[in-house]
Amino acid sequence: MSEQKNISVCFTSDQFEKYADGKSTVVVVDVLRATSVISTAFMEGVKAIIPVQTLEEALSYKGKEGFIVAAERNAKPIDGFDYGNSPFHYINADVAGKTLVLTTTNGTKAIYNAKEHKVITASYINIDAVANHLIDEHNDVIILCSGWKGVFNLEDPIFAGSLANLLLTSGNYESSCDSLFASRQLLKSAEGNLFNYLSDSSHRRRLKSLNMEEDTQFCLAPPVKSDIIPILKGDKLVVL
Amino acid sequence: MSEQKNISVCFTSDQFEKYADGKSTVVVVDVLRATSVISTAFMEGVKAIIPVQTLEEALSYKGKEGFIVAAERNAKPIDGFDYGNSPFHYINADVAGKTLVLTTTNGTKAIYNAKEHKVITASYINIDAVANHLIDEHNDVIILCSGWKGVFNLEDPIFAGSLANLLLTSGNYESSCDSLFASRQLLKSAEGNLFNYLSDSSHRRRLKSLNMEEDTQFCLAPPVKSDIIPILKGDKLVVL
Repeated sequence: MSEQKNISVCFTSDQFEKYADGKSTVVVVDVLRATSVISTAFMEGVKAIIPVQTLEEALSYKGKEGFIVAAERNAKPIDGFDYGNSPFHYINADVAGKTLVLTTTNGTKAIYNAKEHKVITASYINIDAVANHLIDEHNDVIILCSGWKGVFNLEDPIFAGSLANLLLTSGNYESSCDSLFASRQLLKSAEGNLFNYLSDSSHRRRLKSLNMEEDTQFCLAPPVKSDIIPILKGDKLVVL
Repeated sequence: MSEQKNISVCFTSDQFEKYADGKSTVVVVDVLRATSVISTAFMEGVKAIIPVQTLEEALSYKGKEGFIVAAERNAKPIDGFDYGNSPFHYINADVAGKTLVLTTTNGTKAIYNAKEHKVITASYINIDAVANHLIDEHNDVIILCSGWKGVFNLEDPIFAGSLANLLLTSGNYESSCDSLFASRQLLKSAEGNLFNYLSDSSHRRRLKSLNMEEDTQFCLAPPVKSDIIPILKGDKLVVL
């Protein structure tokens, strides 16, 4: 276990090809809100999640026995779908045992772009479980931030800083990538006050204008934690 | 002058298409070292600089009356070229009145990618002149960081933070982009000690291993300042 493994951070899903090496474990992050929704849905008993790229593909599952469909575009839910991209849609809802088909603006694209690698998803809900799994596995790690429509967002790199700090504390990881250094610095300047720090970020403003402050609070400081690690198997996320 | 103009920061030249709008003024930044070399060469009397993409294209100018050729790849100068990518190569050298043909790993690519816009180049050598020009012009601004081979580097966003702070102080600019927020935060955490702050960055390590500490010092805290603003006209950078 003494060999140092590498951690890198990719700021947007579109840039993933620059980081792809075919062998690293990829941790997809879309803290506000797709990977937080994924953690929540699995906690509520969803059996599997199929991340899809298009609304059409998601709708093709609608009404099928055992499937529920969820969609978000530009932070808003979409008419005709059972669920949206708020974690609260899944809590105490009738989702146990179902397969959730999910399409979001950014998060599902990141999962798709990384699909040739081992892909797991992370949020503040399952961050400890993810860190422990990665430390046990001891493989190179790429933290893939979803970004917003191909450009840098603030919240995913800050999460990457949190996850990287847990890995680096183990002593078995190192990093030489500037984007990880920047992520840890941003976390440091945000620490203790993440909600307010992000209040000027573009996505917080977007969610604020849609009255989604509760979602943001939930995703940044979840009231519960989960040990579930969603992993991509074929076209589905399942419980590792 | 009361209308607020927008500033955005693009972290890598490859992502420029996400920011391109055909009308913003683009400020290309490659602090270590291409845009610092460009500032220095103009201060030393170079007449024009032709940024080219390939070594072959640069070499095709070699030996032509009035031209000098310079190249860098992976931070190193290249055999067969008159000059490299160190500002010191141009100081007290026989460059006055000549046209410099320059190809570098990242900076010349950023200039090329933005060429449909008004493009100027900035470094800590001409940052004040660039800021004053932009404030006078009062157009939307895209600060285009060159990055390193398509990925995020640390020094260019920090420079972007410095330039943005000068513009924001004028009261006539605003920004809603997370990458600018992050740039200003990174600058804040680096301020007063930029050289040491960057000592763990990937490019500083690269230059350090090549004994280029003096170049880094020069580019981050230049001993002289310049009022020259290089602007792209056709395929050439000339003095604005």
